[in-house]
Amino acid sequence: MRAERLLARMAPADVAVLLPELASDELRTVIELLFRQRRAARALRELPHEMLPQVFDALADQRLADVIGRLEIDDLLELVEWIPEERREFVVSKLPEHRRAELDKAELYPEDSAGRVMTTNFVALDLKMTAQEAIDALRSKADDSDEVLYLYVVDDQRALAGVVPIRRLLSAPPERCVADMMIPDPVSVGAEDDQEEVARVVRRFDLLAIPVTDVDGRMLGLITVDDVIDVITEEATEDIYHLAGLTEADRVFVTARESVMKRLPWMLLNLGTAFAAAWVVGLFERTLQQVVALAIFMPVVAGMGGNGGTQALTVITRAIALGEIEFSSGFRAAMKELSVGLTIGIIVGGIGAGISYFWQGNPILGVSLFFAMVLTLSVAGLLGAAVPLGLKALKLDPALGSGVIVTTFTDTFAFFSFLGIATLLMDRMIA
Amino acid sequence: MRAERLLARMAPADVAVLLPELASDELRTVIELLFRQRRAARALRELPHEMLPQVFDALADQRLADVIGRLEIDDLLELVEWIPEERREFVVSKLPEHRRAELDKAELYPEDSAGRVMTTNFVALDLKMTAQEAIDALRSKADDSDEVLYLYVVDDQRALAGVVPIRRLLSAPPERCVADMMIPDPVSVGAEDDQEEVARVVRRFDLLAIPVTDVDGRMLGLITVDDVIDVITEEATEDIYHLAGLTEADRVFVTARESVMKRLPWMLLNLGTAFAAAWVVGLFERTLQQVVALAIFMPVVAGMGGNGGTQALTVITRAIALGEIEFSSGFRAAMKELSVGLTIGIIVGGIGAGISYFWQGNPILGVSLFFAMVLTLSVAGLLGAAVPLGLKALKLDPALGSGVIVTTFTDTFAFFSFLGIATLLMDRMIA
Repeated sequence: MRAERLLARMAPADVAVLLPELASDELRTVIELLFRQRRAARALRELPHEMLPQVFDALADQRLADVIGRLEIDDLLELVEWIPEERREFVVSKLPEHRRAELDKAELYPEDSAGRVMTTNFVALDLKMTAQEAIDALRSKADDSDEVLYLYVVDDQRALAGVVPIRRLLSAPPERCVADMMIPDPVSVGAEDDQEEVARVVRRFDLLAIPVTDVDGRMLGLITVDDVIDVITEEATEDIYHLAGLTEADRVFVTARESVMKRLPWMLLNLGTAFAAAWVVGLFERTLQQVVALAIFMPVVAGMGGNGGTQALTVITRAIALGEIEFSSGFRAAMKELSVGLTIGIIVGGIGAGISYFWQGNPILGVSLFFAMVLTLSVAGLLGAAVPLGLKALKLDPALGSGVIVTTFTDTFAFFSFLGIATLLMDRMIA
Repeated sequence: MRAERLLARMAPADVAVLLPELASDELRTVIELLFRQRRAARALRELPHEMLPQVFDALADQRLADVIGRLEIDDLLELVEWIPEERREFVVSKLPEHRRAELDKAELYPEDSAGRVMTTNFVALDLKMTAQEAIDALRSKADDSDEVLYLYVVDDQRALAGVVPIRRLLSAPPERCVADMMIPDPVSVGAEDDQEEVARVVRRFDLLAIPVTDVDGRMLGLITVDDVIDVITEEATEDIYHLAGLTEADRVFVTARESVMKRLPWMLLNLGTAFAAAWVVGLFERTLQQVVALAIFMPVVAGMGGNGGTQALTVITRAIALGEIEFSSGFRAAMKELSVGLTIGIIVGGIGAGISYFWQGNPILGVSLFFAMVLTLSVAGLLGAAVPLGLKALKLDPALGSGVIVTTFTDTFAFFSFLGIATLLMDRMIA
């Protein structure tokens, strides 16, 4: 019984941390205890999705259905997708009839849309109700959720007409009509809208919850800010991951085998582009034979170009994600990155050229390094801005793919400009 | 008057987008209109901080003080820091006395601490109050904020004793004592706690607001979820930026000159490390002279190592930021990244070696490439995990600096292993 008391005191997120550490039978016992405390569903919700199959494995179909059946529809939908396919249908069939119906409906919304993140558990008031009637409606609602924040007012067609913050209800005279105390035309999102758009609206208007409507303006559900926080966190992870060529599911707790399978395509793609750069270097084999020292400085030009490109890419990708690009324009941003690259290229290229000249005593080397760095860093800045903006214009993910395009191009360009300039200078000196 | 109506219909965030586009006198007019609508402060709040000085410039000291004086203390504190130093004291002196006192107090909290993000505008109930008294207390509060969500209950020493969700108050019998309806011992944070920790607690417990207490448990203020969203967004930007060696203030809308100044130190540091790698290549000048084709494949080894290291680094840094590392352990994570690097190294190295052998017909080249890639990718995986974990253990930012350490080391190691193995093999063949 001590375990039971201990579990009761722990936050669901802390319980979640514990679960994957347990053996199958322990896991079953803990879930059983949590279930009796009505907290099993919350704990599962807090578990990173990639760890769910392991926990599901330890539970019988009926018990699993009992546990997830207590979740709100958006969480239920998410967890069901992580049940191994061969069991899924069977587990779902053990859910209560009305939950199955809800699930069927929610599954019709596109992936990552507002319809899939919303809860259908909200309080709707009639336009003609008084404050007292509204309070009675709220009281009569069986669900004891403490987190009702806003009451939504709908008209005869169930179209969203306004919102009454719960605090206003508390201070209003009982006979006051809700139509007179509501904030009319509240901000809302469509059920088909992307969850990223939802997060942007919630952040922009500092909302705690946002109503979701259908094409006719009828209220379908509600997205609360805790789900929005999950969306924001998820999207940030996605951006960080995409910049490094990683897929979202490649997390710290998945097996090495899974990580290898997920990273391999990207690494093979990179191998291809690396060989393209190597092919460019191969074009200048004769030049390299004459001045082997050029090989020493090749990595310097390419490395600096790569850094410059990544910086421009990161600034622009983040600006797109946060909607900050509105404060500037795409063209202005690209021109700025070009001039930043040019300036840094002149400074860093100058220093690099100086060092290499004093080290190797070869003026061709110094001059080639200088011009190659100026050109490469300018191109890196321009591309670092232009590629994500271009991908965005094509309605593609600006973070995904930008990295490989920009670095391939800067690497190839770095080698081509450095060895090309050196070849030209040498031909001149020989002629 | 049309402009006035138009402004009244726009969201503060949309107004903010507009402001930097305006000339000084237009800006003054718009702020004046907004001020009359009591919306100027909100619009300023939505502006990226880097753009504030430009807007402040257009306003007289007294008007600026009037506008920012309407902000809650956390926002006021933030905006005051962006007033140019030579005006700051003067503008602050024009704030109402009680606001100045608040400001002085808030400034005592450490940077990025809960004390600086909290608002002191909250409703505290006495333990002995009844539900009706609580409702009356709420009604009498002059401030008409719709966003009171929770009412906090304090004891005689003003120590936080519990929290009453506003919904419970609505459905309770009027004579019920708040002590009987409150949730006791609510989750809270200390005023000196870091804002990142606050965000983690709010996310973990799915809270809408969290009380801030002093060391004796007395309630000082409240942090609402919209501020937490800002913190989460800010911290994600910081992580993405630090991985690329950028500082937070280097945004899309700052001038090229500012960006150059901010990026230059990082680029100079990278130039230094690039020359360190070049120095390693220089050690093998004789080998390169004998087989110039080695120069062609140097970028392949270094590039693949860099990619592998960045991937490991990204997974681990993100896991640290989200607290997911709790689901694994640092050691386990590092071992996993090592084995992922080793496996990918064998596969990608094998393919690379095959291609280079068929292209150049030189077995030394193929064998060196294979072993160098296996070694480099293993080391990259290990370091990509170990460096951020190590920085975290030293209580340093895991994202900042990891990138430069990992890529410097992998680059240098890539060249050293590739050219070193080739040299050994050639010596053998000659011997």
